[in-house]
Amino acid sequence: MSAERPAPGTLRPRGRTERVRQAVIAATRAVLVEVGYEGLSIERVADKAGVAKSTVYRRWRDTAGLLMELLNEVVAVEIPLADTGTVDEDLRRLAVQISRFFTDHVAGSLVLALIAESVHNAPAAEGLREFWTRRNTQAAEIVHRAIARGELPEATDPVEVIRMIGAPLYYRLLVTHEPFDETVAERAAAAALAAARAGSLDQPSRTA
Amino acid sequence: MSAERPAPGTLRPRGRTERVRQAVIAATRAVLVEVGYEGLSIERVADKAGVAKSTVYRRWRDTAGLLMELLNEVVAVEIPLADTGTVDEDLRRLAVQISRFFTDHVAGSLVLALIAESVHNAPAAEGLREFWTRRNTQAAEIVHRAIARGELPEATDPVEVIRMIGAPLYYRLLVTHEPFDETVAERAAAAALAAARAGSLDQPSRTA
Repeated sequence: MSAERPAPGTLRPRGRTERVRQAVIAATRAVLVEVGYEGLSIERVADKAGVAKSTVYRRWRDTAGLLMELLNEVVAVEIPLADTGTVDEDLRRLAVQISRFFTDHVAGSLVLALIAESVHNAPAAEGLREFWTRRNTQAAEIVHRAIARGELPEATDPVEVIRMIGAPLYYRLLVTHEPFDETVAERAAAAALAAARAGSLDQPSRTA
Repeated sequence: MSAERPAPGTLRPRGRTERVRQAVIAATRAVLVEVGYEGLSIERVADKAGVAKSTVYRRWRDTAGLLMELLNEVVAVEIPLADTGTVDEDLRRLAVQISRFFTDHVAGSLVLALIAESVHNAPAAEGLREFWTRRNTQAAEIVHRAIARGELPEATDPVEVIRMIGAPLYYRLLVTHEPFDETVAERAAAAALAAARAGSLDQPSRTA
């Protein structure tokens, strides 16, 4: 909320740094499309981006770092957060957009690859935890607005409502491997709202 | 429900077959504890079980097959399905047992390893789909009984209620890597029940 100025000395390289970032994101995406997750390497990405290998190593460290950078970009662009004036519609759109995200082969396989990686790779797991904490906090603005408008109980835990939107989709995608579509997504949104309205998604009690 | 008799010719080897199966399950578990998923191999399991490698290859094909066999056994034993007389208590116990399952290192890492494998391995994904379809259909008996007792609306989709119990736990475990405990589990059960009672987990309409 405060007007932040870049720290001294960071202004000059800003343009180049951002250009490198965009080139590396585009290259990571292209390499994933061409050769898949198995073929992703720092070398291939640096080559395609026209950036020195050492730069990519220094800034992103490994393929998990590259995937996380791409994830940030892709989720922000492809799952925009709606503000339609009603929580039912905002959450319905969020659920539908998450389900569509996984019909896009690149974006979907990116998230799946990161999740598979995170099972055996603690830094990847920590990266995902940080990413989702930030992202779900942003998305929870939808629920904060709903509480302010009196659409949901004051005690509602906003982030828990957001978790309930994604959870049924990821459950099918990762655990049961059952198909899902927009009907499944809409049902997830409706269920989260019903649970919140019944007081089942309240903030955990501090005294418990 | 019909009294099934074993097919002719399967009776005699039953005892040995079952002994081999139990030995292989125990060996798979022991190898996982000793050297982890990365070290799991048909050779190691056959060796520890005292069974011919060719037998293990023929029956289980690969490590995913071994893990699926262990999964069947472990889930049936460690997550029993309650029948306490009320759906609230049956589902609360189910949720708590799923969360405890993942504090058991071997059982939890087994499921995680299978899920990671399933992202890049179609037969493993199909194995998980078959396993969870069977398992969630069994667990849905809890919801069928609740509908018969008038505790939940007639139109409730029993398997969807069961999915809603597990989904928030797997979401934290696999996607956001946030911690969870029995409070999270109990909230998942309460939310699933509230959504079902509000009619948000009804069977998908056939006419839609």
